[in-house]
Amino acid sequence: MLRVRDDLPPFLKNYLPDGHRNGRPFVTLTYAQSIDAKIAKQRGVRTTISHIETKEMTHYLRYFHDGILIGSGTVLADDPGLNCKWIGPNNDPDESMEEKSPRPIILDPKLKWKYSGSKMEELCNQGMGKPPIVITTKTPKVKEANVEYMIMEPDANDRISWKSILDTLRRNYDMKSVMIEGGSHVINQLLMCSDLIDSLIVTIGSIYLGSEGVTVSPPDEVKLKDISWWKGTSDVVMCSRLQN
Amino acid sequence: MLRVRDDLPPFLKNYLPDGHRNGRPFVTLTYAQSIDAKIAKQRGVRTTISHIETKEMTHYLRYFHDGILIGSGTVLADDPGLNCKWIGPNNDPDESMEEKSPRPIILDPKLKWKYSGSKMEELCNQGMGKPPIVITTKTPKVKEANVEYMIMEPDANDRISWKSILDTLRRNYDMKSVMIEGGSHVINQLLMCSDLIDSLIVTIGSIYLGSEGVTVSPPDEVKLKDISWWKGTSDVVMCSRLQN
Repeated sequence: MLRVRDDLPPFLKNYLPDGHRNGRPFVTLTYAQSIDAKIAKQRGVRTTISHIETKEMTHYLRYFHDGILIGSGTVLADDPGLNCKWIGPNNDPDESMEEKSPRPIILDPKLKWKYSGSKMEELCNQGMGKPPIVITTKTPKVKEANVEYMIMEPDANDRISWKSILDTLRRNYDMKSVMIEGGSHVINQLLMCSDLIDSLIVTIGSIYLGSEGVTVSPPDEVKLKDISWWKGTSDVVMCSRLQN
Repeated sequence: MLRVRDDLPPFLKNYLPDGHRNGRPFVTLTYAQSIDAKIAKQRGVRTTISHIETKEMTHYLRYFHDGILIGSGTVLADDPGLNCKWIGPNNDPDESMEEKSPRPIILDPKLKWKYSGSKMEELCNQGMGKPPIVITTKTPKVKEANVEYMIMEPDANDRISWKSILDTLRRNYDMKSVMIEGGSHVINQLLMCSDLIDSLIVTIGSIYLGSEGVTVSPPDEVKLKDISWWKGTSDVVMCSRLQN
């Protein structure tokens, strides 16, 4: 069970979900990067960037979201648990980790990921997390047990539109809030979607990962507003919103 | 004349030059970048990244350095003044801007830059800045008035070693401290030279400049130590040192 630094909840308060948005969930985009804007030292290599304080913050944030979405590349590289280990607002022993955790949503158009044998499955079997929704463009030949498949029509460029993903998560799964944690392709696309992102929360760790790392940088300039910064022991966190 | 925010001098205090280092000057590496580690939107385009507060900080820092070094690419793109407009520690009207300013040092191996007609010349002629030293690998055919040429032997890779540059600045020009402000090639090289950099001061402005921008990211991982962060209105500043 994780706690969170006392000064983080007041800092994050104005950026937490406060209900859905015109039929789509409230969307928080969040990630941790190095000074040189890398989220990993190499593609597929899990890299420690930030202090335990900001890892705790991530678990705190997860508590306030119905869903947690990441791309298949990151799931394949990191095998993340995606559950919420925060102790909860009342430190209530009756509130299970499963209840506190957001539902994992894996964007996996080509069905590369297997739930079976994953950390997520392990946590779910132990009552410490929820079973995932897999977003894909084709009906799987073999459906995995406990996996919900959300089949989406790709557009002319063989992509699924973010708006349709979010609308469907709201409509079919009643999701009022989704936290999006990566990887770089997902983040770079969504930084260009100011109409879909409600909060942006970026941790910057005081390290350079080097030019071979995995970069977060959107295709074009992105201006921010409602900016606030938090200083930790070795990291900073920026909360903001995207300008239209 | 510029002032500086009251909380910046105490924040910067431990990172200011405190005398030369074994025959070379104390070296401060400093620059301003976007969240996505870009120092400009495009090569050759001067880009506003940071708040006026951190621009003031740069002028404050210049006051404490004997020299200010930048690469020819940046000088050609930005035509910077490189002088010190900070009001000074005692707000002394007798201390001229020329006295307060560090001496510009332009790393220009192929002599692409002309002093004549530059902002630097204008400031120098008005008694608001010092005349430059140009570091080059060949004796110029025509020497410009008021320019000091520091001719250095390139190595086998046609590069001038940073150590020899710094040693020569100390030996020939009695420089006890040099501030290095860019551009990206210079910064990326020097981030790998933990034995030559005494302070690293990075401003991060709350904007994304996009993937076409000019990136600061060293060739390999760089670990930092003695990290402190300052929060401004919209920027943060990190002071640190490089781990060996």
